[in-house]
Amino acid sequence: MDLSKFIRNVPDFPKEGIQFKDITTLLNNHKAFEEAVSCMESLFKQEKVDRVVAIESRGFIFGAPLALRLKAGLVLVRKKGKLPSETLSAEYQLEYGTDSLEMHSDSVKEGEKVIVVDDLLATGGTTEAVIELLEKVKAEILGICFLIELDGLNGREKLKGYPLHSLLKLPCD
Amino acid sequence: MDLSKFIRNVPDFPKEGIQFKDITTLLNNHKAFEEAVSCMESLFKQEKVDRVVAIESRGFIFGAPLALRLKAGLVLVRKKGKLPSETLSAEYQLEYGTDSLEMHSDSVKEGEKVIVVDDLLATGGTTEAVIELLEKVKAEILGICFLIELDGLNGREKLKGYPLHSLLKLPCD
Repeated sequence: MDLSKFIRNVPDFPKEGIQFKDITTLLNNHKAFEEAVSCMESLFKQEKVDRVVAIESRGFIFGAPLALRLKAGLVLVRKKGKLPSETLSAEYQLEYGTDSLEMHSDSVKEGEKVIVVDDLLATGGTTEAVIELLEKVKAEILGICFLIELDGLNGREKLKGYPLHSLLKLPCD
Repeated sequence: MDLSKFIRNVPDFPKEGIQFKDITTLLNNHKAFEEAVSCMESLFKQEKVDRVVAIESRGFIFGAPLALRLKAGLVLVRKKGKLPSETLSAEYQLEYGTDSLEMHSDSVKEGEKVIVVDDLLATGGTTEAVIELLEKVKAEILGICFLIELDGLNGREKLKGYPLHSLLKLPCD
C-alpha cells in the first residue's frame, strides 16, 4: 500500500511557505492506519522492547498501539509542565528561542530497551531532546521510528548513531 | 484486574487543592494498559463503528488502539489552530473565559456511527463541545467512553442522553 497517498498536503500552514503534511487523512482510513502501525511493529517484533517512548502529541497516536502490540510499557514525553510527578527535562531549539520536553524520572530505568516514536522527522530537534532524556537514564535505544521523514532538513544527520526508520520520505517543499 | 491501583494520585497539581489522577503509571504497565483498552473494545465490539473520535491529547492514547481494533477511522479533536484543513469549532468553558475545540469538517459524515474517547471525565465541558461538533455533522453517537470518571463534578449530568461508559470511578478529592 502506498501510504503517501493518504497524506494531505496543506500549503501555507501553520504559516506562509510551509507545506504541512496532514496525517489526519491517513488516520481516518482504517486500512492505511493499520498498515502504518503494522509496518512499525514489524521493525521491532523480533526484539524484546521494554518501553515505547512517544512524543507529544501525534507520537501518542502511533506509540500507544505499538506499545500494546510489542507488550511494552508506554512512556510519554510531554511539553514542559504537563507531567505531574518528578521529571527530567531537556531543551530544544525553536525558530526563536528554546522550549523543553519532560519525561517522568521513574518511567525508564537503566539498561531498559526502548524505542522512540513520532509522526514526523523534520529538523530532528525534539527527537534529539528525547534522546538526551533517555541517555540521562542510561536506557538502551533500539531504534527511532517515524511515519514521515522530510527530505532536505538534515534531521537524520542530527540523530546519527541511532537506528532510524521512517515509513515514508517526503519532500519538505 | 483493579485498574485503580495503577493510577497515581498527585496532590496539588496543577495547582493547590487539586488531586491529579496520573495515568502515566497505568500506561507504563503493559498488562494494565492492555486491560483498559480491551475493556473499552468490549463495550463496542458488537457494533459497527465508523469512526473513533479522540480528544487531544490523552484521548489519542486510547482512541488510536481502539480505532485499530474496531476497524474504524480515527478522528482527532484538537485545540484551536492545530488542525491544518477546514474545521468546525465549538467553545467550552474554562475557569476564567472560554477556549475552543476543532474537528476537520470532512472527517465525519452525516449518519456515521461514532464513539467518543477520552481519558478523564471531570466537569464534562470539553466532551460537551465534542458532542456539539458531532451533532453539527449529524453523526450518530453510539457512546462516550472514559478511563476515569471523577465523582462529584456532575460531568455525567452534562452528557445526559448519550450512552456513557467509564472504566473507573474515582473521588475528585
